[in-house]
Amino acid sequence: MSESFGTRLVERISTYGPLCVGIDPSVEVLEAWGQEQSADGLARFVDAVLSVLPPNIAAVKPQAAFFERFGAAGWSTLEHLLTALRERGHLVILDAKRSDIGSSAEGYADAYLGNGPMSVDAVTATPYLGVGALAPLLAAANTNDRGVFILCRTSNPEGRSIQDVTGHDGRPVWQQVQDTVAEWNQGTNIGSMGLVIGATLRDHTDRLAAHNGPILAPGFGRQGATAEDFPLIFSSVADRTLANYSRFLLNTGPSGFVDAIAETSAKLISSS
Amino acid sequence: MSESFGTRLVERISTYGPLCVGIDPSVEVLEAWGQEQSADGLARFVDAVLSVLPPNIAAVKPQAAFFERFGAAGWSTLEHLLTALRERGHLVILDAKRSDIGSSAEGYADAYLGNGPMSVDAVTATPYLGVGALAPLLAAANTNDRGVFILCRTSNPEGRSIQDVTGHDGRPVWQQVQDTVAEWNQGTNIGSMGLVIGATLRDHTDRLAAHNGPILAPGFGRQGATAEDFPLIFSSVADRTLANYSRFLLNTGPSGFVDAIAETSAKLISSS
Repeated sequence: MSESFGTRLVERISTYGPLCVGIDPSVEVLEAWGQEQSADGLARFVDAVLSVLPPNIAAVKPQAAFFERFGAAGWSTLEHLLTALRERGHLVILDAKRSDIGSSAEGYADAYLGNGPMSVDAVTATPYLGVGALAPLLAAANTNDRGVFILCRTSNPEGRSIQDVTGHDGRPVWQQVQDTVAEWNQGTNIGSMGLVIGATLRDHTDRLAAHNGPILAPGFGRQGATAEDFPLIFSSVADRTLANYSRFLLNTGPSGFVDAIAETSAKLISSS
Repeated sequence: MSESFGTRLVERISTYGPLCVGIDPSVEVLEAWGQEQSADGLARFVDAVLSVLPPNIAAVKPQAAFFERFGAAGWSTLEHLLTALRERGHLVILDAKRSDIGSSAEGYADAYLGNGPMSVDAVTATPYLGVGALAPLLAAANTNDRGVFILCRTSNPEGRSIQDVTGHDGRPVWQQVQDTVAEWNQGTNIGSMGLVIGATLRDHTDRLAAHNGPILAPGFGRQGATAEDFPLIFSSVADRTLANYSRFLLNTGPSGFVDAIAETSAKLISSS
C-alpha cells in the first residue's frame, strides 16, 4: 500500500459506489444461510459468503462480536476471512469498536493496523476514554496507510444519553469528537481518520460539510434508512461516505445475497 | 454458580483483600519474562504465570488487547488462560472494554457471559453508545450470575474531554453513567453491575457512597496510586472495590512476581 486509507477509500467509492457489505453472522443470519449455531456453522457460513461475494464493492465490514461468540475457533475463522478478503483485494473494515489507553491501545493498533494476521484497512473505535487515548491507533493508521472510524453520533436511541450531552461551550459530546478527529486530519486533502455517523440522523447533514475524512454510515436497511436517504443526509460528503448494509443483504440467504448486493448498490449509485 | 457476581466478589474481597492481578502481556512485560514477541512467547508467558499464580487473590484480570495482538493464535492462548483460571477457582474479569448495540451486543454477551469457551465472571464494557445499549450484556449477567464493569470515570487525562462534559441538568457524563448503573442494581443488596473508577481521581470519594455495585479501580502502581491511597479514595465502598495492579507486579519478571503480589496484597489489607 502506498496511498493513504482516505485516498484509497474515495477511489473505491468513485469506482464502485458507496455500498459497504457488513458481514454479521448473527443467530438469524446463520439460520438464513442454513448453518448451525456453532464454530463449524460459522466457518461454513464464511466459506459460503466468500464463494459468492462480488469484487466490485467499495468495502466489506465483518463484525467482530459474531466471531468472538465462538471463542478461539470463531477467531480463527475471522482470521481466515480477513486473509481471504485481503488476498482478493477487498478494502476491509473490522467493526470491533475497540478502545483502551497506553500500551493496551498499542496492542489493538498492533493487532489490526500492523502487519499481523488480523491486519485490516481500517478498524472502528470508541472514544469514551477520549479521542486522545486512541492516539496509538491513529499513529499506526498514519504510519501504515490504514484508517480508524471513531464512533461519533450513532443511530441507536440509547446513544443520545451520552453523545448529545452539551457542555458549557455549547458543543455536544459528538461535536467534540468530530472536531478532534478533524484536527487529526488537518493538512490532508482527505484524511484517514473517519467518523461513524448513523444514517437515521437526518439533522446531521449541515454538520458534516467540514469533515475532512471518511464516514461510515450504519443504519441502512433493517435500521430504517433507505438508498434514497443517502444523498439527503450525506450530500456534501457523499464522495467519502460508506453506506453500510448488513442483515438486509444477508437475511436473504445464499440464494438472494448477490442479487441483493447488486440491487442495493445500483439504487445507491442512482440516488447519489 | 448460584450466588450473584456482586455477592461472590464481596466475599472474595473479604477473604483475600482487594487485590486484582492484571495479566497484561505488553511488549515490556514479555521482555521482563524473557519471552519473545510472538504467539509462542505469549503462550510460554501464560504457562509461566499459571505455574506461580497464587490462589489467594480476589480476582484476576487479563487484558484482551495483548492477546488479540497475535491474532487467532493469541486468542487461543487467551482461551487456554481463561479455562485454566476458571478450573482453579479464580474469579476472572476480562478487560475487553466491549461495546455495541442489538444483536452485536448479544454476540459479546454470548461470548463472555454465556457458557462458551471464553466464559468469565465479568467483562468490562464502554458506554459511548449509551448504558442502555449494553442491556444484552446486563441481562446475560443477571441471568447467569455474572457481572459487567462499565467505564465511568477513568484515570487517563484524555478521558476528561468526554466524561466530564456537564449537561444542562448539572450532571457530567460520568455521573449519568453512574446513576444509570445504580438503577440497574436497584433492589439488590449488592448488585452485579460495576463501575470502572480510576484510582487517581481523589475527588471522587464522596460520590461513590451511594454506589450499590462493585468497583474496579485501575491506576495503582505504574499510574501513580499507592496502597495507602486505597482507603482514602474508596473508604465507603472498600468492601466492594478491587484495586488493580498489572505491570507493577508483572514487570518484576518471574522471579519477583509472587513476592510482589504478596507484598502488595498485605499493604492493601493493612491500609484498609
